[in-house]
Amino acid sequence: MASDGFRPLDEKALIEYIKATPTLALKLGNRFDDLQIKEVGDGNLNFVYIVIGPSGSFVIKQALPYIRCIGESWPMTKERAYFEARALKEHGRLCPDHVPEVYHFDRTMCLIGMRYIEPPHIILRKGFIAGIEYPLLAEHIAEYMARTLFYTSLLYLTTTEHKRAVTEFCGNVELCRLTEQVVFSDPYKVSQYNRCTSPYLDEDAKAVREDNILKLEVAGLKSMFCERAQALIHGDLHTGSVMVTPNSTQVIDPEFAFYGPMGFDIGAFIGNLILAYFSQNGHADDKNDRKAYKVWILKTIADTWNLFDKNFTALWDENKDGPGEAFLPEIYNNEEVHLMVKQRYMRDLLHDTLGFGAAKMIRRIVGVAHVEDFESIAEPAKRADCERKALKFAKRLLKERRQFQSIEEVVSAIEQPQP
Amino acid sequence: MASDGFRPLDEKALIEYIKATPTLALKLGNRFDDLQIKEVGDGNLNFVYIVIGPSGSFVIKQALPYIRCIGESWPMTKERAYFEARALKEHGRLCPDHVPEVYHFDRTMCLIGMRYIEPPHIILRKGFIAGIEYPLLAEHIAEYMARTLFYTSLLYLTTTEHKRAVTEFCGNVELCRLTEQVVFSDPYKVSQYNRCTSPYLDEDAKAVREDNILKLEVAGLKSMFCERAQALIHGDLHTGSVMVTPNSTQVIDPEFAFYGPMGFDIGAFIGNLILAYFSQNGHADDKNDRKAYKVWILKTIADTWNLFDKNFTALWDENKDGPGEAFLPEIYNNEEVHLMVKQRYMRDLLHDTLGFGAAKMIRRIVGVAHVEDFESIAEPAKRADCERKALKFAKRLLKERRQFQSIEEVVSAIEQPQP
Repeated sequence: MASDGFRPLDEKALIEYIKATPTLALKLGNRFDDLQIKEVGDGNLNFVYIVIGPSGSFVIKQALPYIRCIGESWPMTKERAYFEARALKEHGRLCPDHVPEVYHFDRTMCLIGMRYIEPPHIILRKGFIAGIEYPLLAEHIAEYMARTLFYTSLLYLTTTEHKRAVTEFCGNVELCRLTEQVVFSDPYKVSQYNRCTSPYLDEDAKAVREDNILKLEVAGLKSMFCERAQALIHGDLHTGSVMVTPNSTQVIDPEFAFYGPMGFDIGAFIGNLILAYFSQNGHADDKNDRKAYKVWILKTIADTWNLFDKNFTALWDENKDGPGEAFLPEIYNNEEVHLMVKQRYMRDLLHDTLGFGAAKMIRRIVGVAHVEDFESIAEPAKRADCERKALKFAKRLLKERRQFQSIEEVVSAIEQPQP
Repeated sequence: MASDGFRPLDEKALIEYIKATPTLALKLGNRFDDLQIKEVGDGNLNFVYIVIGPSGSFVIKQALPYIRCIGESWPMTKERAYFEARALKEHGRLCPDHVPEVYHFDRTMCLIGMRYIEPPHIILRKGFIAGIEYPLLAEHIAEYMARTLFYTSLLYLTTTEHKRAVTEFCGNVELCRLTEQVVFSDPYKVSQYNRCTSPYLDEDAKAVREDNILKLEVAGLKSMFCERAQALIHGDLHTGSVMVTPNSTQVIDPEFAFYGPMGFDIGAFIGNLILAYFSQNGHADDKNDRKAYKVWILKTIADTWNLFDKNFTALWDENKDGPGEAFLPEIYNNEEVHLMVKQRYMRDLLHDTLGFGAAKMIRRIVGVAHVEDFESIAEPAKRADCERKALKFAKRLLKERRQFQSIEEVVSAIEQPQP
């Protein structure tokens, strides 16, 4: 055991821990004889144990003091478990339908006990690769984003509450720094961690590093990420952080949570939908040309933004006489100005979303961490072709994002052949 | 004595306090027989004692737990003394020539012992009213702003250092809230605290409250003030926070300091120079038509921005391989992109400066706290005429700030007859 009381739990120690922890023991009806325990994490980043007993179940997630990155160990504070638990609880309170319940948190052990998100839930990214449509996905994720972002912003909070919350999440600086590095820096310079589908994309990766306009735009986004405390964001809202069935959508893993720009979350999700779109040609085969599925993805992109916009502005309307201090009712309670500030806010947020979404796409093609959407395309030439189209679109989106007035214009641009 | 150990000091208690505080006693050579002590604060906001002994001197500033505002007492945390002392020390370290040295700080007593800024130093605002030219003012204040803002931004700090500092200054939330109210809110609604030169400006004040475009723009600035932790700003950098002689410029009273947008400081200073300009017609008389002085003020406005720009970008150039993490050298070390990011940064900063400057002007004419530049014009009709011109210009500046490409264009607009 380390001097701070932390010890990584193996299966045997886990059972003892559960027995000694009333909240967890009670979840299992205090019966420990027929427990099924399965370790499903990779064991290099976190331990993730599924624990199923005769009368209840949960997941135990324990953070380890490092992350594994392309074969090398990268030290990473295990305090991230604290911020993950805080964000799960806060976002869960605001949107219980789409966030797993936290049963137990142990700061010393960096350990969270939470709802087991049972089969047939799968990771959304795997659903995209398999070509499965989720008719409620856009509606659910739009509700999640609208509620978690609205209620933690100055549209709902007083500046006193906001500054207190900002202070707390400033502590998650190490995870923020990881994002700064892998999203906003490494893809734009030579880095030992970068990789791409070589040699096909070598020139494309080099072009990213030498594109001054692109680097100018990325600098602006990085500054916004570091300086602007707009709302409590998830911080890593890609399609690997979402578990789905056709009827259920659950957002997990908010260990990167902090007060940052809303567009970083919305952009992460939409950017990953666009990646899923561009990967489809690599998954097409004789049985399924994926054409209809691509149409569905595009519809989901448009629906996600439009439903987010609808939900978010509806919350704003409902709460326009509420506690939020960004727009005081005595100043902004006439119809014309209320409409004007909403339109300006949502337009700026769309542009932030497109910028961050594009940055997240680029880093998944020429940075350290790639996505299974492309990685699962076995043939490198075919994979590179898909990735190149996605990269070209992302570069255009990053540079020209302020010219898009609606998500429909973005969808049209995705459909056009990439020049 | 309050339960927290705080007690306001009268002159007798002050002498006992000095005797019991080695740092202060030593400043006076441990000789207390011939002390001159003068209370120069208004005693309602802070006690400010000048203490002069045979072999040394200092000022003692003690924060009281309220501020006096148009005859009413407004509770205000005395903890502001802590943030004032922190900012004085940090800004003093970065720019010792223009910040008074702190000798002693007592958190329990909310008491700062610092350099006595001796005669012939006067408050800059009084210099403007008297029509005195300060040939080094622009150079000095530009140096102060460039150094304090650059070195506390992500152009020089790592994101770890930045987040730690942001955390600390989030504690100064009550003073931030006072700014939010008196600068960004009260002037745009009916408030018991607002006043104006009535009845002359009643319609103008009403027009401010009913101007939706103006309120849209002010909302954007308020959000930036609340959300964007760009640098450690002074927070109240008007011409009443600067003491001058022809050869010396000292910035005092940073009790509003926190991590906020740089443009708020630069705008406060330039906005107050513009107010000084528009007040001059009210101070003209047979002996001095103030025409030459107005030309000097306009030159000082242009010089302040241009020298700030020059100093700030020079610090950036010197430190482009330094620790700052906004623009990593490996990505931004080619000449073309380095120039591009600087130009974008300075253009955006000019627009922020003009926006905040305009907001600070407006609040001084229709908000709670007015400026002596106008208040000292005895004839109300004449005062109102000066104020109306300043208000019209400020409204235009707030709405059209993004159209100005240089400070010279702003100066031209000031000189034009206000429509």
